[in-house]
Amino acid sequence: MASVDYPEPVRNLISQLKQLPGIGPKSAERIAVWLVQRGPDASLPFSDSLAAAAREVTECGVCGFFATVERGCAICDSLQREGDLLCIVEQPTDILPLERSGAFRGHYHSLRGRISPLDDVGPEDLRVGELVRRVGEGSFSEVILALSSDVEGEATCHFLAELLGAFPGLRVSRLAQGLPAGGGLNSADELTLLRALQGRVGV
Amino acid sequence: MASVDYPEPVRNLISQLKQLPGIGPKSAERIAVWLVQRGPDASLPFSDSLAAAAREVTECGVCGFFATVERGCAICDSLQREGDLLCIVEQPTDILPLERSGAFRGHYHSLRGRISPLDDVGPEDLRVGELVRRVGEGSFSEVILALSSDVEGEATCHFLAELLGAFPGLRVSRLAQGLPAGGGLNSADELTLLRALQGRVGV
Repeated sequence: MASVDYPEPVRNLISQLKQLPGIGPKSAERIAVWLVQRGPDASLPFSDSLAAAAREVTECGVCGFFATVERGCAICDSLQREGDLLCIVEQPTDILPLERSGAFRGHYHSLRGRISPLDDVGPEDLRVGELVRRVGEGSFSEVILALSSDVEGEATCHFLAELLGAFPGLRVSRLAQGLPAGGGLNSADELTLLRALQGRVGV
Repeated sequence: MASVDYPEPVRNLISQLKQLPGIGPKSAERIAVWLVQRGPDASLPFSDSLAAAAREVTECGVCGFFATVERGCAICDSLQREGDLLCIVEQPTDILPLERSGAFRGHYHSLRGRISPLDDVGPEDLRVGELVRRVGEGSFSEVILALSSDVEGEATCHFLAELLGAFPGLRVSRLAQGLPAGGGLNSADELTLLRALQGRVGV
């Protein structure tokens, strides 16, 4: 006689939960049991919000951030943003921390990744063509490269700097590298210190 | 100008995910973005399985395990199980590890908790009345108490042993305590060793 397992709907829910990033088999089981024991009051609003997100959320064809079918893109459609500044990020999720910093109110362009030969990702796999077209047609005075400071981010930075250098009168800048806010010297690695020294500013 | 945030359907999904046990704000955001970027192919089956579990899964009124509206309870409805053995557990989820051990093929009774004066949980908050009725009406020869070996589990064990002692001819047993399988003496705590010595068996 086979040992008893959860009923099929619970097993299906566990296998769906297991696919989520960062959720292992044990967590998936714990969450599924929690949801089932809470009953429809917990599961149905969750189910509805998943279906709504799937139905309504799209990628903005211009900047690559999340947009909705009904309301469009909160960034590209805004008339209050500085139209001459463009900030290039790797992922749409990189836009939120920049927004929260409050230091930038221009437009964004998500590349949807970065150049990574080891992962077989080249410029043609990224939203680089869209970027060149956008810069060519737009009236940007400055493009800020806000990419990661690791090897792939640096490579992508160099590639884009060269590419965008072809536009006359366009300033191309990148984020400063140095000590993170609140970080002491003893917790900084050598490369960070090297960059902080190279980028030192007058006081 | 307020900083841009995720569109509303994504924010709703994040707040639903944050309520799940073991999911913090960062994980909820990562999972929501992952789901949205995967699109309807990832979100809709998940949404459907949540709705199906909410609609179809119930608690078996007899044993307390998960049952479905359509197929009933896989344990209570089975004709192949040993009808004279009853195993008492704290939670319905405790049934699966016992089943997987392959050592028991009788019936179960989930208490839906254990006696815990500190949490204000007494016998009247548990499925104890159902247990007494079930033992009185059934033809069980032995009841096995498979409760936790912590203070609350012990207290519940003592309470039930006394209660079930009133049924003439009913054997009441409990799980053995001792060294866990594969565990060395140096990793066992004193109480486990005390129990292992007290419960020593002839070889």
